[in-house]
Amino acid sequence: MHLLGPDRVLTHTAQLVPYSYDATPFYQCMPQAVVRPVTAQEVARVLRWCSAHGVPVVPRGSGSGLSGGAVPVEGGVVLDLKGMDRILEIDRDNLTATVEPGVTTLRLGEEVARYGLFYPPDPGSYVVSTLGGNVAECSGGMRGLKYGVTRDYVLALEAVLPSGEIIHTGSKNAKDVAGYDLTRLLVGSEGTLAVITQITLRLLPKPESRRTALALFDDMQQAAHAVSRILQDPIVPATLEFMDRTTLEVVEEFAHLGMPTDVEALLLMQQDGPAPVVDRDMERMAEICRREGARQVRVAADEEEGQRFLAARRATLPALARRRPTIVLEDATVPRSRLAEMVGRIQDIARRHGVQMATFGHAGDGNLHPTALADGRDAQERERVQLAFADIFQAALDLGGTITGEHGVGLAKAPYMVRRFDAATLEAMRAVKRAFDPQGILNPGKIFPPDHPEERR
Amino acid sequence: MHLLGPDRVLTHTAQLVPYSYDATPFYQCMPQAVVRPVTAQEVARVLRWCSAHGVPVVPRGSGSGLSGGAVPVEGGVVLDLKGMDRILEIDRDNLTATVEPGVTTLRLGEEVARYGLFYPPDPGSYVVSTLGGNVAECSGGMRGLKYGVTRDYVLALEAVLPSGEIIHTGSKNAKDVAGYDLTRLLVGSEGTLAVITQITLRLLPKPESRRTALALFDDMQQAAHAVSRILQDPIVPATLEFMDRTTLEVVEEFAHLGMPTDVEALLLMQQDGPAPVVDRDMERMAEICRREGARQVRVAADEEEGQRFLAARRATLPALARRRPTIVLEDATVPRSRLAEMVGRIQDIARRHGVQMATFGHAGDGNLHPTALADGRDAQERERVQLAFADIFQAALDLGGTITGEHGVGLAKAPYMVRRFDAATLEAMRAVKRAFDPQGILNPGKIFPPDHPEERR
Repeated sequence: MHLLGPDRVLTHTAQLVPYSYDATPFYQCMPQAVVRPVTAQEVARVLRWCSAHGVPVVPRGSGSGLSGGAVPVEGGVVLDLKGMDRILEIDRDNLTATVEPGVTTLRLGEEVARYGLFYPPDPGSYVVSTLGGNVAECSGGMRGLKYGVTRDYVLALEAVLPSGEIIHTGSKNAKDVAGYDLTRLLVGSEGTLAVITQITLRLLPKPESRRTALALFDDMQQAAHAVSRILQDPIVPATLEFMDRTTLEVVEEFAHLGMPTDVEALLLMQQDGPAPVVDRDMERMAEICRREGARQVRVAADEEEGQRFLAARRATLPALARRRPTIVLEDATVPRSRLAEMVGRIQDIARRHGVQMATFGHAGDGNLHPTALADGRDAQERERVQLAFADIFQAALDLGGTITGEHGVGLAKAPYMVRRFDAATLEAMRAVKRAFDPQGILNPGKIFPPDHPEERR
Repeated sequence: MHLLGPDRVLTHTAQLVPYSYDATPFYQCMPQAVVRPVTAQEVARVLRWCSAHGVPVVPRGSGSGLSGGAVPVEGGVVLDLKGMDRILEIDRDNLTATVEPGVTTLRLGEEVARYGLFYPPDPGSYVVSTLGGNVAECSGGMRGLKYGVTRDYVLALEAVLPSGEIIHTGSKNAKDVAGYDLTRLLVGSEGTLAVITQITLRLLPKPESRRTALALFDDMQQAAHAVSRILQDPIVPATLEFMDRTTLEVVEEFAHLGMPTDVEALLLMQQDGPAPVVDRDMERMAEICRREGARQVRVAADEEEGQRFLAARRATLPALARRRPTIVLEDATVPRSRLAEMVGRIQDIARRHGVQMATFGHAGDGNLHPTALADGRDAQERERVQLAFADIFQAALDLGGTITGEHGVGLAKAPYMVRRFDAATLEAMRAVKRAFDPQGILNPGKIFPPDHPEERR
């Protein structure tokens, strides 16, 4: 395939290996080729060729996904979109940014901050993750409770269908209901319907001020009650994160915040907005935590200390990764009222299967990250981890929750889709897939449950 | 058809006439029957029957739509969903409400207010409009700028496919990315993909306080500049509405606010939230309006006066309806930075075609309601109105806008879809339609451009 010139088509094994996996443990498959388009027209050319030859195409950003979404499980061509990394426009009058899919979340955030603007979604991998990947996975982050997720910021898309045709969905208009909402259908479609080549995002004015606090609890139930009380107060904080004892120990060892590590739960709270409101909400949240039995509440003295608290939370994954060779970070999610119950069930399940499990996550969203610390080379331990997660997802579903809050289905959750959805709903999704990709060449093997679920695990 | 018992199947002409039109002028077609299901299973039974017999099905709420979406343009069965009007749950812990489609927007708002909660979308017809209709049309309203539209509040749906199968999309979880976002695909699909039988909506805590103000300008450009300056300040007001001189005259005559009617533009501003922020934002907005040349700024003394200002804005449609027999209320929309330009073009176009046009709308959203005051019985005037709107939609598109901000495509905008979207995007929408409704029995004739555009106008 010399569609793009040899310098942008990789075929040597050594070049292909980095594209055989993403940030999800246990999944690896080699592609036949990697191509690096830099325009929508080039993407279209590749897709037309692949359609004509029945070759699978797997779109890829930074490969920081946590559900195996970028793993070329049926081989074929990996479409490396990192080269499409131009910020095309920042429209200060309409509060929008138009970007190519390879721009990183961090870079957009820094760029819009120069104009006093703010792009809220902040997935854990925001330093490296691309906006194309964020859109494909409908990435969340720590600001979901107050600000929503990627879906809530995507206004318009340019995307290439498997046929090579280029479509244009949505618009820069704050309100636009012309035709079906293909924009949000593509958000979270995990590269299985079309390849996104341009994104128009909604921006907000940057919050005027921000304050951060920590609260430490001897009992998980106390922390969960504090979360409920805060939300019922009602306060809608910008961030309301939680860590269990295992997570806290590991993070303290890594970040040296001088926190006691003999507590059962930590809440990380942040509010932003006009200063008087931020101050008032922080006081109220601190008071609620104390009333619910917090052993200690620490309000950050200034922005710098607040940033350190947040950095510690953001360091969770690298901190955990120092403990054991294989870190399986999941995102079972429940309605927020079931948070304490779900944490309890996760602890029971981990104990029963003999799996070391750290749990942290977005308490205000009910979006939990139960994380197994394991050695993936140990087949028996790997089996135990997989059985534990099967029970955890079932527990989430039993509590009215879901199998993924923000990581996507990809390969990792595909076997659980039959538990999450009834047959009619799953078939409606398959019908949408066939409508966009009748040959099934776009990111095959993702989202939909395999016919023989055990094969891919 | 005795699927539901004779008392819930209407077939007499006199019974059918009220179902032959909605709130959109110029469109009327008789159905063969009206059925009134009260459960999803009954809806399924009707859809299975209609599928088997190739009979069109038109879902209908209160019939307050402004794009002809509920007009049974190909006859068949109108599905009157007003009988499915139970509020099934208000979940105060998770801030959600689960309702049947026939519940009115007003009733939900009143019900959740009892718990200190708030459902923001407030379409002009909210007193009578049903939530099923709001979801089908992705209704907007006066709070769109700060709070978004219906799409931003729909968490989960139960819906019946034309085959009679019942699907369940989304969940109560704040974050849920399992599978394709069928929830948002159905939002705004105008009853052409599935019949919605249950809706789970996100709620917010009720804002603590609220203030309202009016500003009067001798020049439309001044008002538009004030809108830009407010948003750049940055202030995101709960409401930022505008009325032109014609609208203002009619509204003053109707509502007796004691406003001068010799001004060119009025801005209606509301902010809500914690009192100190509301006060500060109102002061800033008043100051910006004065600086941009407002002749007068009136901040409402109290909630009651604020409500009167708002009621005047809400009375626009009935007030205009007293002037001429036929009121054609449209919603051409532009990126907010093009507001003043668009208003100017609307005035020029109206003058050129000899049409009396009042323009008002959601200034902060760029969502304008150019409204023709006409006599639909006069064929020549009707023709002039239609030609004027054709030019207005083209002007909106030329400015990067869209053909509908919140009313939906229905019949009224279907001919303009070929101008709004390129062929590939429109074909992707058609493919989605075929995936859900292969026989094309659900609300036929809507959204997609007719083969012979002139036939239906």
